[in-house]
Amino acid sequence: MSKVSPLLDSLIEALQCLPGVGPKSAQRMALHLLERNKNAGLILANTLEEALEKVDKCSECRIFTESDKCQICSNEKRNQNLLCVVESVSDVFAIEQSNQFNGHYFILHGHLSPIDDIGPDELALSSLFSKVEKNSIEEVILATGSTLEGETTSHFIFDYLKDIKNLKITKLARGVPLGGELEYVDRGTIMHALSDRQVLKEEN
Amino acid sequence: MSKVSPLLDSLIEALQCLPGVGPKSAQRMALHLLERNKNAGLILANTLEEALEKVDKCSECRIFTESDKCQICSNEKRNQNLLCVVESVSDVFAIEQSNQFNGHYFILHGHLSPIDDIGPDELALSSLFSKVEKNSIEEVILATGSTLEGETTSHFIFDYLKDIKNLKITKLARGVPLGGELEYVDRGTIMHALSDRQVLKEEN
Repeated sequence: MSKVSPLLDSLIEALQCLPGVGPKSAQRMALHLLERNKNAGLILANTLEEALEKVDKCSECRIFTESDKCQICSNEKRNQNLLCVVESVSDVFAIEQSNQFNGHYFILHGHLSPIDDIGPDELALSSLFSKVEKNSIEEVILATGSTLEGETTSHFIFDYLKDIKNLKITKLARGVPLGGELEYVDRGTIMHALSDRQVLKEEN
Repeated sequence: MSKVSPLLDSLIEALQCLPGVGPKSAQRMALHLLERNKNAGLILANTLEEALEKVDKCSECRIFTESDKCQICSNEKRNQNLLCVVESVSDVFAIEQSNQFNGHYFILHGHLSPIDDIGPDELALSSLFSKVEKNSIEEVILATGSTLEGETTSHFIFDYLKDIKNLKITKLARGVPLGGELEYVDRGTIMHALSDRQVLKEEN
């Protein structure tokens, strides 16, 4: 503790709620704001308070929004028949950046993890299933992470959806990432890239 | 931009006022607070607002405090006759952690840097000088950084103080840091460590 100012100590303590911020970075942040950037700090305090009060999950896709329906769900230009299931809001940001997807999302906010008491209810899977059954969705893309938990969650959702008629279910392609040198790609990825290899020319 | 929620976008933007936080970390912080840590986020917002409003420079030593006099200046157990001049509040924290210093501080909040329009006024040097002249200070420790600007600032202060009678002026020892392997210590530090070498036994 700084022995200097209890309020400064509280601020350094409070800043450590941010991910990746320890005591040293928190101290640097607090002093930076006090020394050089009081205005930006006040804007941050107000925006943070407002966002935490007003932003909640979209009633349709569970993305964060301050309205009842998020901007993606209320955008009529997007394809209503295509639904992409992801684990977190940052996955949505990543997919949106690719400019390759024009459908809707469903955000699980996690993956199945019995050890942490996260089951189908916590991921609102019943709401996902009824959405797929009631709406005229033609394709569901299962885009959970390629971790053990992500794959398990995908399998669980697939098992439920597989009997619905006229529904296509896909998952993201696994393979060597763009710009990835083969030398540095892990074994599992190379296994996938080999077994899902694309045909350039069939034998004559 | 996330295309999802203007308020979330503002929060991600505002978080980037923190040092070392770019768009990606800001996004991670915003989503972390919204997903998992709303309470801690609200505490952060309130503490930040209160600290930025109430914390100001101590009238004596220019450290940050919410009172008129900081806890160090108002602590009567500390040695009033010993004054340590440092560049920033984080230097005070570092020195306090060593438990080796029991005097008072004077914080410059920077160093002389004509290119950035930082002169003696910005560092409140006149207030430092009158403090040394009026009070019964016996020793001033110049503990500015060992950079070119820090050394220049030290020299400037030394030049003014050197004619005051009965005043001892010192600077921090330069040398090999504790636990530092010689192999990785830079040339300049080794030069200092050699020229300031300590005698273990005089020649008989």
